[in-house]
Amino acid sequence: MRPCDLGVVGANGRLGSRVVAQATALGDRVTLRAGRGYWTGGVPDVLIDASAPDLLARTVDFCAVHRIPLLSTISGLSDSDRALLAELSREVLVLRADNLSLGHYLQRCLVTALGTMVAGAGRPAEWHVLDRHPATKQHRPSATGTALAAAVRSTGAADVGLDSVRGGLPVCDHTVETVIGQETVAVSHGVREWSAYAGSAVRAAQWLHEGSMRAKSSGPHTGGFLSMDDYYAQYSAAAFPIVTTPPITTSPEGVRS
Amino acid sequence: MRPCDLGVVGANGRLGSRVVAQATALGDRVTLRAGRGYWTGGVPDVLIDASAPDLLARTVDFCAVHRIPLLSTISGLSDSDRALLAELSREVLVLRADNLSLGHYLQRCLVTALGTMVAGAGRPAEWHVLDRHPATKQHRPSATGTALAAAVRSTGAADVGLDSVRGGLPVCDHTVETVIGQETVAVSHGVREWSAYAGSAVRAAQWLHEGSMRAKSSGPHTGGFLSMDDYYAQYSAAAFPIVTTPPITTSPEGVRS
Amino acid sequence: MRPCDLGVVGANGRLGSRVVAQATALGDRVTLRAGRGYWTGGVPDVLIDASAPDLLARTVDFCAVHRIPLLSTISGLSDSDRALLAELSREVLVLRADNLSLGHYLQRCLVTALGTMVAGAGRPAEWHVLDRHPATKQHRPSATGTALAAAVRSTGAADVGLDSVRGGLPVCDHTVETVIGQETVAVSHGVREWSAYAGSAVRAAQWLHEGSMRAKSSGPHTGGFLSMDDYYAQYSAAAFPIVTTPPITTSPEGVRS
Amino acid sequence: MRPCDLGVVGANGRLGSRVVAQATALGDRVTLRAGRGYWTGGVPDVLIDASAPDLLARTVDFCAVHRIPLLSTISGLSDSDRALLAELSREVLVLRADNLSLGHYLQRCLVTALGTMVAGAGRPAEWHVLDRHPATKQHRPSATGTALAAAVRSTGAADVGLDSVRGGLPVCDHTVETVIGQETVAVSHGVREWSAYAGSAVRAAQWLHEGSMRAKSSGPHTGGFLSMDDYYAQYSAAAFPIVTTPPITTSPEGVRS
Repeated sequence: MRPCDLGVVGANGRLGSRVVAQATALGDRVTLRAGRGYWTGGVPDVLIDASAPDLLARTVDFCAVHRIPLLSTISGLSDSDRALLAELSREVLVLRADNLSLGHYLQRCLVTALGTMVAGAGRPAEWHVLDRHPATKQHRPSATGTALAAAVRSTGAADVGLDSVRGGLPVCDHTVETVIGQETVAVSHGVREWSAYAGSAVRAAQWLHEGSMRAKSSGPHTGGFLSMDDYYAQYSAAAFPIVTTPPITTSPEGVRS
Repeated sequence: MRPCDLGVVGANGRLGSRVVAQATALGDRVTLRAGRGYWTGGVPDVLIDASAPDLLARTVDFCAVHRIPLLSTISGLSDSDRALLAELSREVLVLRADNLSLGHYLQRCLVTALGTMVAGAGRPAEWHVLDRHPATKQHRPSATGTALAAAVRSTGAADVGLDSVRGGLPVCDHTVETVIGQETVAVSHGVREWSAYAGSAVRAAQWLHEGSMRAKSSGPHTGGFLSMDDYYAQYSAAAFPIVTTPPITTSPEGVRS
Repeated sequence: MRPCDLGVVGANGRLGSRVVAQATALGDRVTLRAGRGYWTGGVPDVLIDASAPDLLARTVDFCAVHRIPLLSTISGLSDSDRALLAELSREVLVLRADNLSLGHYLQRCLVTALGTMVAGAGRPAEWHVLDRHPATKQHRPSATGTALAAAVRSTGAADVGLDSVRGGLPVCDHTVETVIGQETVAVSHGVREWSAYAGSAVRAAQWLHEGSMRAKSSGPHTGGFLSMDDYYAQYSAAAFPIVTTPPITTSPEGVRS
Repeated sequence: MRPCDLGVVGANGRLGSRVVAQATALGDRVTLRAGRGYWTGGVPDVLIDASAPDLLARTVDFCAVHRIPLLSTISGLSDSDRALLAELSREVLVLRADNLSLGHYLQRCLVTALGTMVAGAGRPAEWHVLDRHPATKQHRPSATGTALAAAVRSTGAADVGLDSVRGGLPVCDHTVETVIGQETVAVSHGVREWSAYAGSAVRAAQWLHEGSMRAKSSGPHTGGFLSMDDYYAQYSAAAFPIVTTPPITTSPEGVRS
């Protein structure tokens, strides 16, 4: 990936500050820093939104005016917030990241493959998913735990438990285990530092910039709505055909990079 | 699978006795029991060898004379023993099982997929494999641990550690973990009871019987040399194309080792 | 311990049948077997009740009439059931076992010691307790998990989480972990087979018989109300003075509940 | 503890730099920083040596001349280095720390108590110790693993395995597990950040300063040779009498090693 100029909304927050640090570590320049009460710097190649929903309108407006792609990592989006992002994606590339982590993507791929193989083997299997976060996290189960349970169910498994543990050190662990007779197979993913998410955000922003450049040079349609799966699937598609990768679509006709 | 008549060599041993019990539980009849000093019963549909190399000559001879398939699960085979099995496979189907467990197969598939995806992502990764067996197991590392490390290395990983822990309760656990930045992804497999292996042996024998029936009805070539991968891959091939699965071949042209 | 003659109420149940098997393995004779609809055999030295509350009245009556000690392992006792046991303990030794396992006792001792030391160190600590049982167990948290959390709180800890995981193979695991700064210390206990409980029941019954013999030979007061802590504490009292161990007391003065 | 003025030898090293950071965080002043090629600042209340053996002569000389206590945390000490520390301890308090961590102390106490209880229970038990460090650590087993195995053996256990795993993220994990029949009990300790050691060094230095002040005010003998056990035992002595805790002794009569 080529380095690029990044803007970070929520630059002083838990994730945003780490995005700024990782951007520098990975060779990018942070040319715009914004947040509640400040918005300073020049127009970047890509904007990373690591703030909160109340800054979304201004963020989306900025991207539309300057025609730069947006990587949205904030949580707590309402339906109308998501509609705003979809609207923006008619003009520029928007990557909506529900979970930035590479490891989460790998775990979900593996769990889907495991479920499919176990279903094929025709043996009765029991499944359970465990999410662990520090005691400070109130919400349970985690969105990631729910996504993993859905991945298992998508393979036809009927009996999928989902439990949460609140304790231990940051950041989090997720485990999916199946019991087949007197055997168990488990796929686990642990995140040790928030910087893991920040590094993924910076790398995905670089990729978004390149895709945006390509799209602009190839025609009039430069928008599109993407997910982290689209980003990670480029690495794994050849190796792991079980993961179906819908094409990057650009509005309205569906241009893809 | 249709039930069939099974013969068990080593019928009183640790694995063999469980094969006899699982055969009954899964609807088969055990019509032949053999071992050191005894060989009683009629000709079965399939012979499962769960004994020791010193009974191999008689076992192979029995299968050749009666033209029945052989499932060989014994360990400690010499090169000449393996040559004997290969020779037999020109006449009848021979399934040589280095590790009977379904979970081991699943783990190896997942680890290979994980290694391929991680290699594709181009991020530096460190790998390690852990085998745990009770303190009574002297040999380290386990053959399964070595096979898992080889699976990781086959994806291009250079730095793969392999450690053994000797302690805890039977039967065994194997874990493969990769560290990518501040994230970890692990695939674990545990076997709780020896009956897990025995059940797999019985199911594979049923499959071997069906394959043998098909081969006999379709032409003069009724032999073939198979592995547990061939057995398990039939379930997973569609779901998991990363695992290449050659079809059951018939001898003399199709002997594979 | 000297072998003795045991009676088992609920002799055909999940725990009772294992008590019968372990009794034989440990050198005892099972001279009485009872349950719903059957009550056969002679008067034993000790009666182990592994059945259900609805047989309690007859069981208690039998012990009172024949003046033999009772080891009560059943769950789901009502207050009036417990009053019945307390009443019986005025005549004979009654051991009420909420958790038979040696490992549970050891874990509770260690957790209490850990909590006391951490409190003494004056460092902020966060605690959590995890109970894991197979998906078939509905109730959460487990009584053992609740007991462990209470042990932690008894040392002054204010912030004690308690979570349950329902999945995996029988029987169960319990873990207590504390986080102190960037360190964690955990005490874990796993039970792999129901026979672990059964063996403890048989050993405690032998001990109860010996205590009963001693009490009878030393005076008119032969009753007393005991717990598994009383049984296990005899082994650990010298080594582990943190666990206060009241002596076996005889009624009527010494009834303890 | 009252804040004090600290000196740090090896102030730019992996541990030393964290000691400087933790000292500030815990309210102390770092008035002296030293290392290979630099030695700047005034005389502190306590000197923490986090450097390497080749600076030991100067460090010891400095403490002797200025009559300040020394906390020695460096590894790789030779016998003559230790003799130098013992000699110094005739004049001032010397705390020689083989493992700074509170959690390590707690784990060793718990394991000793567990071993003593298990020995008392008279049940056959198998033990194993596991040390895990990242792949960059060459040496195996770790000194801490060896110390834990020794703690188990000190309770009379004969069969104690000790295995090492090299993989995963910093800093380290140690687990001691015993198998008793079909049950397991384990005590685990994990260290997530090097700052855990640094914080303990600073706290122990504060304690050393207070002890030194008390010794100076109470008589002519101001030396003594201490370990981290002496430091931590003050918190746990009341709660955990199994750990014998000799008082701080003053030289020349009371030198202990």
